[in-house]
Amino acid sequence: MRLRSFSSIVDWIIIKRDGGELSAVQLQELVAQFMRGQITDYQLSAWLMAAFFRGLSLDETVALTDAMLRSGQQLAHPRNRLPKVDKHSTGGVGDKISLCLAPLVAACGVAVPMISGRGLGHTGGTLDKLEAIPGYQTRLTVAKFQSIVRRIGVSIIGQTDQLAPADARMYALRDVTGTVPSMPLIAASILSKKLAAGLDALVMDIKVGHGAFMPDRKAARALSELLRHVGKRLGLPVRGLLTDMSTPIGTSVGNALETREAIAVLTGGGPVDTRELTLALGVEMLQAAGVEASAKRALQLLEKALASGAAAERFERMIALHGGDAGVVADPSRLPRARHHSVVLAAGAGYVSAVDARALGELAVAMGAGRTRADQDVDPRVGIELCAGVGLWVERGTPLARLHCASLRSAQQWSTEALRAFTLSERKPRLRGRVLERFG
Amino acid sequence: MRLRSFSSIVDWIIIKRDGGELSAVQLQELVAQFMRGQITDYQLSAWLMAAFFRGLSLDETVALTDAMLRSGQQLAHPRNRLPKVDKHSTGGVGDKISLCLAPLVAACGVAVPMISGRGLGHTGGTLDKLEAIPGYQTRLTVAKFQSIVRRIGVSIIGQTDQLAPADARMYALRDVTGTVPSMPLIAASILSKKLAAGLDALVMDIKVGHGAFMPDRKAARALSELLRHVGKRLGLPVRGLLTDMSTPIGTSVGNALETREAIAVLTGGGPVDTRELTLALGVEMLQAAGVEASAKRALQLLEKALASGAAAERFERMIALHGGDAGVVADPSRLPRARHHSVVLAAGAGYVSAVDARALGELAVAMGAGRTRADQDVDPRVGIELCAGVGLWVERGTPLARLHCASLRSAQQWSTEALRAFTLSERKPRLRGRVLERFG
Repeated sequence: MRLRSFSSIVDWIIIKRDGGELSAVQLQELVAQFMRGQITDYQLSAWLMAAFFRGLSLDETVALTDAMLRSGQQLAHPRNRLPKVDKHSTGGVGDKISLCLAPLVAACGVAVPMISGRGLGHTGGTLDKLEAIPGYQTRLTVAKFQSIVRRIGVSIIGQTDQLAPADARMYALRDVTGTVPSMPLIAASILSKKLAAGLDALVMDIKVGHGAFMPDRKAARALSELLRHVGKRLGLPVRGLLTDMSTPIGTSVGNALETREAIAVLTGGGPVDTRELTLALGVEMLQAAGVEASAKRALQLLEKALASGAAAERFERMIALHGGDAGVVADPSRLPRARHHSVVLAAGAGYVSAVDARALGELAVAMGAGRTRADQDVDPRVGIELCAGVGLWVERGTPLARLHCASLRSAQQWSTEALRAFTLSERKPRLRGRVLERFG
Repeated sequence: MRLRSFSSIVDWIIIKRDGGELSAVQLQELVAQFMRGQITDYQLSAWLMAAFFRGLSLDETVALTDAMLRSGQQLAHPRNRLPKVDKHSTGGVGDKISLCLAPLVAACGVAVPMISGRGLGHTGGTLDKLEAIPGYQTRLTVAKFQSIVRRIGVSIIGQTDQLAPADARMYALRDVTGTVPSMPLIAASILSKKLAAGLDALVMDIKVGHGAFMPDRKAARALSELLRHVGKRLGLPVRGLLTDMSTPIGTSVGNALETREAIAVLTGGGPVDTRELTLALGVEMLQAAGVEASAKRALQLLEKALASGAAAERFERMIALHGGDAGVVADPSRLPRARHHSVVLAAGAGYVSAVDARALGELAVAMGAGRTRADQDVDPRVGIELCAGVGLWVERGTPLARLHCASLRSAQQWSTEALRAFTLSERKPRLRGRVLERFG
């Protein structure tokens, strides 16, 4: 005799806890009841922890993603418009690629409606970097966002309650209940938002290594496969790259410093690896958009847009339409700057064989560039400028990094931490590119 | 560089999720912060689910139990008083043993301050059975409870917020988040309450079989060992029995019917197995109390208290002191009775080889004798009277059970369900006693 039909959250928790599978209808109900307040936060967090341990099947992940997508507004795919493609990174240290990539790809004829996040933990967030530009507004209505994308092909805003609000609520819960690092939950979180934005395709930058959430390549590959399969089932082509995140990207960690580096790339310069990663992801986006099938020709298009100033101009127009000071592109000294500096010097001689991305990401947070709790403010001025990259020979006293600080109170301790992030060795290390492999 | 010290609930969730062990200080903080509202329900439920999957070490279980115990008042062990012993059952179908056992053991010189629970799911609860007695109050203050125990050696009340309030709050959360069936959480829940009550010893009745929460004997044995070890570490000797719960205890399932059966046992009669179980647990209690070391003499003492009317008289006095109609002991027809009855007849001939306790427990709930949610009321009148036990030869048309119903609206369906709970076979089944083994 069955007293309860399997139709309430307690049963759904128990099914998942015991390794069973929920139907699409049950998952749709789970999300809908949670959003209506009929399922409590404490029940959903228990379910999420059970899902962390038991995983979700592909069918479940598809159904959960779909249910989260349906919790809010869904932007239409207007006909006869530019193809809409977004890029999403799983989060890294010094990852300012979105700032370079979105205007660049827009300059090549792709619409880039980019919805980004804030930094949390040791990884930075695109919104914090944009907000280093005086006046730049990241909170726009969806209507305003769409109008900017229609006008100039690119806009970068923060998450909005209008698109996939279930994801925002579930993520906030996962963040404080130890249920973030679950592949199917990560996939559903990413894809529900991207599907709601009505994209034609999604390019993923899946970070691998000590500075990333996904430490090994096998896990990163599994996530890429999951994203591809779930996207396919829901009509969103997903492709992208697995990229190395053992050392920070480029030469800066910290919001204004990274925006400055992004401007350097957009105006044809910048560190080699930041440029390399921007171009590699740009090629994927142009191909995904159907703008250019050949990778070689796509690369030429992108390089032309950088050299001609078209990409930088697109960035200026985006800043202006978001209420920001577009003059920072021509004159990056208008970005906020820290008053105090401390130079970190090598204590001995050797080749720089490793620069610990996670350690420097955590140091930047400690300095005030990031947050450990979602409600903390960040200081746009502070951060770390890297003076020596992997492969460089340094002597005792060679500058390894320059710390940009709000005050010098803890500079001694921070310098010690920064120094510890550099490994010197007698043998010249083998240099590798950022791109490890591509998928999709 | 460590940004956060491991001192907040998010870390404690992650430690447990990843298979680590929390310190006693951390568990003390976890419970204290939860009780102060500094840890949210959704964080505790995630931690509980992680504990469900990862388990708790013996040290952790001891520390958690101790922290829960310290969340409220702790009753003293007054010197020169009777030894205080309680019995706790893990829950069964037709389990009215507490009603017989507590006054019986009190009549033999042991103080029995019993704190009981309500029925939930397919198993019944002692409080619901006592409340079938007109006027009986199960909600007394701790002071009143202690004064009754001092006066007559026995009182049975419901859980109070004064003793181990953390357990009540955690159990309420576990009940709706699928985290009830975890050995260490079960042990901490039972023992924190019993320790707070200042017992000298605890006797456990761990139910085994299809009608119990613990289906197999191996799991029951593991729970008995855990209770014994945790109890020992915290100064509470724990002993008891593993008893069979595949068929309902005695001949009744339902509140007033079970109280009636308990009265029958207390007045020297009653079904053989109900009496057997009462006496076996009584022997454990007398031994645990140090009243009688020899099991044989303890049994004689108990049998004498039943035969002399001392046990029944103790029950009458307890009822009276709880505001109830003590006249039910001499005249059980004063207990509430259902108006409608439906007799379930055997559909063929054979030996009754199994009576499904779980099925009958669930049927009793459906009839209104129990609850599926904690806020439901129960109907004391309804229930199932068993006419044929395991081993009996029945013909087509022999009554197997008599349903006591509030109305006959669903009587047809209930009869079908009741009939299904009986298995008939051509071979005479082997009869077994209730007591499977003892421990401690």
